[in-house]
Amino acid sequence: MLTAIIVAGGSSRRMGFDKTFAPLHGRPVIAHTIAAFEASSVVDEIILVGREERLAELKEAAAQQPFAKVRNIVAGGARRQDSVSAGLIMADRDSRYVAVHDAARCLVTPAQIERVFVSARANGAAALASPVVDTLKRATANSTISGSVDREGLFAMQTPQIFLRELLLEAYQRVTKKKLQITDEVSAVQNLGRKVMLVSHLEVNLKITYPTDLLLAEAVLARRREEEASGN
Amino acid sequence: MLTAIIVAGGSSRRMGFDKTFAPLHGRPVIAHTIAAFEASSVVDEIILVGREERLAELKEAAAQQPFAKVRNIVAGGARRQDSVSAGLIMADRDSRYVAVHDAARCLVTPAQIERVFVSARANGAAALASPVVDTLKRATANSTISGSVDREGLFAMQTPQIFLRELLLEAYQRVTKKKLQITDEVSAVQNLGRKVMLVSHLEVNLKITYPTDLLLAEAVLARRREEEASGN
Repeated sequence: MLTAIIVAGGSSRRMGFDKTFAPLHGRPVIAHTIAAFEASSVVDEIILVGREERLAELKEAAAQQPFAKVRNIVAGGARRQDSVSAGLIMADRDSRYVAVHDAARCLVTPAQIERVFVSARANGAAALASPVVDTLKRATANSTISGSVDREGLFAMQTPQIFLRELLLEAYQRVTKKKLQITDEVSAVQNLGRKVMLVSHLEVNLKITYPTDLLLAEAVLARRREEEASGN
Repeated sequence: MLTAIIVAGGSSRRMGFDKTFAPLHGRPVIAHTIAAFEASSVVDEIILVGREERLAELKEAAAQQPFAKVRNIVAGGARRQDSVSAGLIMADRDSRYVAVHDAARCLVTPAQIERVFVSARANGAAALASPVVDTLKRATANSTISGSVDREGLFAMQTPQIFLRELLLEAYQRVTKKKLQITDEVSAVQNLGRKVMLVSHLEVNLKITYPTDLLLAEAVLARRREEEASGN
């Protein structure tokens, strides 16, 4: 059994408005994200984690469509890791695996979720990622370039990230105990010294961060609709 | 005086076809790129560097519109650095500054070119870049995550990269002499021990790499046209 925790906790300071509910192709961003997990045959239940003050709105967005797998809609915390924790304790006790996903990655596909799940079942922990194609440099605070970073074998981590539920619980206990600051669940599990596998892909898995991202997401969704209409 | 060298040298193995001439919003990708430099008031001449076997096509694309600043269209080499060298020796001797730009970054704007030029005039060397927002991890060949890379102060390098012409010539002489492999001009100039400034931005400066990028570029161009039409 697989529980998906979709985290819509961010304060979205960069957008100036909450990207979770931004209109995209006729429905809120979050509805696209939920729909992908709802459509995936490997997902059994969905837990939504949102900001306390927007919880009513989150419930409304989740009720717009008949999402049968949404079991819980709970309030998150100040940091991402607090929000994931809040979702994690709500997972069904029979759930062997937990997927953590950013609500803002609304273009995720059931096929991507399933690829990560296959790897997580084989290895205990797996995360979606794309190879870094840019030349990377470090810069000082005054914008002088101070060094290079080798991009060989370097990946930009995305979500979903899927783990054995017991492993993620253990990792989060350690994060809490040691007062660690983490940017994703892979970092939490790595901190236990446990192996995490990458599931590398080259498709679009945009995270809505800036207003222009909504424009790009619109284009991708319009194209998908065209392809569906033409039977591809 | 500023010479822009637009490099269309890549073999585009990832696309399966040459992205330089892919149709985008009614004209080839390269025509959009040239148009941005043509429209920039700080650019005096443009040199196009293309693949030997597609040179006729490159000339045709450059002739589709009245691009008054295109002075030379020359064949590049096997590696990016060979192509930049081929363009660099064609620059007007009166040109104090040289901008190097990837043909595939077809959404670049005159405003971005000008921002980089302002920094290059003040510092001798400057490059456009965006802060890395993803969590980065290293992975081994068998896809096991093997380590993390701190994203603090990390930037994805883009083009244009603008330099004093003499500085870039000196950097390229060293690259040739020492048989160095470089991924961008910043690396060449850094190798001289010279300072390069970052010009950080958060706008779109997409490099056409995969077919889906064309789709995203279409969306951005359509939006720009709408904004122009509405007088924004």
